Amino acid sequence: MTRREYDEWLNEAASLAHALRYPVTPEMVNDSAGIIFGDDQYDAFENGLWSREPYEAMVIFESLNEPAVDGLPAAGAAHAEYSGLCDKLMIVHPGKFCPPHFHQRKTESYEVVLGEMEVFYSPEPVRVGDEDVLEFRPMPDGEAWPEGVALPAGREDSYSRLTSYVRLRAGDPKFVMHRKHLHAFRCPADATTPLVVREVSTYSHEPTEHAHDKAVPLPSWAGLHDNAFVAEAANTGRLATAIV
Amino acid sequence: MTRREYDEWLNEAASLAHALRYPVTPEMVNDSAGIIFGDDQYDAFENGLWSREPYEAMVIFESLNEPAVDGLPAAGAAHAEYSGLCDKLMIVHPGKFCPPHFHQRKTESYEVVLGEMEVFYSPEPVRVGDEDVLEFRPMPDGEAWPEGVALPAGREDSYSRLTSYVRLRAGDPKFVMHRKHLHAFRCPADATTPLVVREVSTYSHEPTEHAHDKAVPLPSWAGLHDNAFVAEAANTGRLATAIV
Amino acid sequence: MTRREYDEWLNEAASLAHALRYPVTPEMVNDSAGIIFGDDQYDAFENGLWSREPYEAMVIFESLNEPAVDGLPAAGAAHAEYSGLCDKLMIVHPGKFCPPHFHQRKTESYEVVLGEMEVFYSPEPVRVGDEDVLEFRPMPDGEAWPEGVALPAGREDSYSRLTSYVRLRAGDPKFVMHRKHLHAFRCPADATTPLVVREVSTYSHEPTEHAHDKAVPLPSWAGLHDNAFVAEAANTGRLATAIV
Amino acid sequence: MTRREYDEWLNEAASLAHALRYPVTPEMVNDSAGIIFGDDQYDAFENGLWSREPYEAMVIFESLNEPAVDGLPAAGAAHAEYSGLCDKLMIVHPGKFCPPHFHQRKTESYEVVLGEMEVFYSPEPVRVGDEDVLEFRPMPDGEAWPEGVALPAGREDSYSRLTSYVRLRAGDPKFVMHRKHLHAFRCPADATTPLVVREVSTYSHEPTEHAHDKAVPLPSWAGLHDNAFVAEAANTGRLATAIV
Repeated sequence: MTRREYDEWLNEAASLAHALRYPVTPEMVNDSAGIIFGDDQYDAFENGLWSREPYEAMVIFESLNEPAVDGLPAAGAAHAEYSGLCDKLMIVHPGKFCPPHFHQRKTESYEVVLGEMEVFYSPEPVRVGDEDVLEFRPMPDGEAWPEGVALPAGREDSYSRLTSYVRLRAGDPKFVMHRKHLHAFRCPADATTPLVVREVSTYSHEPTEHAHDKAVPLPSWAGLHDNAFVAEAANTGRLATAIV
Repeated sequence: MTRREYDEWLNEAASLAHALRYPVTPEMVNDSAGIIFGDDQYDAFENGLWSREPYEAMVIFESLNEPAVDGLPAAGAAHAEYSGLCDKLMIVHPGKFCPPHFHQRKTESYEVVLGEMEVFYSPEPVRVGDEDVLEFRPMPDGEAWPEGVALPAGREDSYSRLTSYVRLRAGDPKFVMHRKHLHAFRCPADATTPLVVREVSTYSHEPTEHAHDKAVPLPSWAGLHDNAFVAEAANTGRLATAIV
Repeated sequence: MTRREYDEWLNEAASLAHALRYPVTPEMVNDSAGIIFGDDQYDAFENGLWSREPYEAMVIFESLNEPAVDGLPAAGAAHAEYSGLCDKLMIVHPGKFCPPHFHQRKTESYEVVLGEMEVFYSPEPVRVGDEDVLEFRPMPDGEAWPEGVALPAGREDSYSRLTSYVRLRAGDPKFVMHRKHLHAFRCPADATTPLVVREVSTYSHEPTEHAHDKAVPLPSWAGLHDNAFVAEAANTGRLATAIV
Repeated sequence: MTRREYDEWLNEAASLAHALRYPVTPEMVNDSAGIIFGDDQYDAFENGLWSREPYEAMVIFESLNEPAVDGLPAAGAAHAEYSGLCDKLMIVHPGKFCPPHFHQRKTESYEVVLGEMEVFYSPEPVRVGDEDVLEFRPMPDGEAWPEGVALPAGREDSYSRLTSYVRLRAGDPKFVMHRKHLHAFRCPADATTPLVVREVSTYSHEPTEHAHDKAVPLPSWAGLHDNAFVAEAANTGRLATAIV
């Protein structure tokens, strides 16, 4: 991906965010905002983002990532990494995906702003070690996948455990994705606009290039990476974007 | 306040929220959404919400109040009430206030959607018992109050410790209000539209009439009220709206 | 209707217009912008604009009424009153109507911005004297009326010749209403928001109180009234609003 | 310009239009919607639309072009081509221009939807033959040009008679450009988003490739071209877009 391709992608996405009144500041439009999930996914730029081909690539503009540690009783420090506040606008072109992954710590919610969002997820949580976890309102079962969802070449297997499906539209109630649930989503391949989603979640622990020298609220947060992608290539690709 | 006055207030506010693309569902427009902070504040309806007189009254449409307890290690249960996710749209008419209060547990952030927001706060946190709390990025000092802010009659004293001021506009970076800080805000009295603010925060513990029979994720959350208003009348007024 | 009722109506409508990005300037919010079509229609305010009862009342914010006379060949002056440019935002509460009328000169187009618009019209043009008129693309036939449209009491007859119906939504192609066609429209009675419509049309000849001392581009335009309402009471009511 | 470049340009522009609620239908996104004003201006795509370099290129989505001939007295047919209704959304990237031109017949108005619009125009109308024209409210004088407006290479002379300048912003009153006045406009080169402007005008007589086989309301309208560009290359370039 060339610098020109990257900048066009980001500038158009930021313009769309402005038009939708998302509070985009200049520093939010940086070289970690456009994400390509692994070396093979850069092929998305051979035919361009409007080719409607399945690739794993998206833009995230993050307007808030607040640890919410100030004023917390010191005794709560050990689990503070499960808390905090993050607000993002995610922009996905037709046919493109946010790839299968889960967060050990982060609980999310989705609000579709423009277009429609196809969410694929596992209704069963991932077990982390022999950890004993709380349960209050488990994920709903969702529907079966519709016909004809074209998956990224070579990554099909990484979607196999995400057996539940839900399609979200602007005006729908917020949809909550609990921590520890595998999930992915895409913009329908025949959409006329990119999908634009606001995600309100707990803190995002992501040691991206852009964030890597930021101060952390607690020593244990340093270098913490809370994104576990099913495809190993997506895992490494998420943290740095190769612009030539 | 009559049923007609209440419904007109709520319906106009919900229409504004729709126009601004906030995901308002019918159940969010209920008898706890319009808030009048104490018996004396119902006088706001003598001359109406466009009189620009100082009263404490506002609308809150809550699209999300997620405990984020699912998937949390059981050992974190004790402090889970400091976490969670809440998303609200708050609509305040010209001259009207959200009155001085603090939350022991809730950290908030503001995003102005329409109009301008005048925030009044204390840069020093309230001390709760002899609790030892964490500190990472303390509240900024803010500015001095501008001239001519008309305060609600009889409630002036409740604003005295909120010595810091900041004025927020659409497109500004999110403004974080840490837990345990006294704060209030208003819509400027000479505004042409109501102030519309999106608040993304941790969980709102508010035993309103509307919420009072909802299931709680942990026994200790039952009846928890995390809003501490300076004026005692505001405290009681917040939880129920008297519509005649 | 009291001054308070009028100002609340107008201020809420102007706020909605701002939220929808219509270019509302302070002078557009005046005592001719809120229209009540005849003395009997002031009863709409007994139960208020959210009662969903059928009355003829609406708000019009006019951002442009340009004669487009400058630069016109002098030989074209005689028919210039059929030309020009007008841009309005019209706001109609649930159940309320813009009453049956036609324009001898004005051709209109509708673009729904919020809500849904029920248009009632006559597919046949009104004949004006023995005038010979051009025809290019006649009005489509439209559909039959749906069941259950509650008409304003005492005005039912004025709707009888408007046999065609069309329901317009945001994103639909512009709908053109040719000059000389009887038409009316309403906001569905069960709507959750007021109907908001942008009308782009040729010049509006309306000697309202607000406009009555404006200069005219040609002597023949002075006092010209191009709105012919079927109900005589609507005709007189349109030009002045009685605020007490 | 390749098909891919063209489609990316148009799809991003259409997405922005959707986000801003302009009523874009699929047929409005066609091969006449992206306009490059002459062979030399295709160089704009060497470094791309976000290079901020001065070129003459823009997108127009036309939601209405209504002759408004139906119902017009037959005696008015001779000057009907000065009337009618057109509604367009125009999208111009940073640094790019709509080049100097005038319309003998079309009167326009501008409403900025996103970004800021720099308008350059001549306060004196162009004289067409020995035609005697009406005058009512002449164009205002405007301001002098600001420093540092980079003009398209080789086209500088075509801007020399446009001595007046005005900068328009969202929320400003509609700005009217009378027929027969030379005008051009651009998106500021340092803008963060494309300029988006709604133009409400009288009928657009433009025999573009897309429109060339449309029926005309009067025989004299066939092939009528009402755009007179100062630069001859812009004149020919406007009507067809070369996509390879």
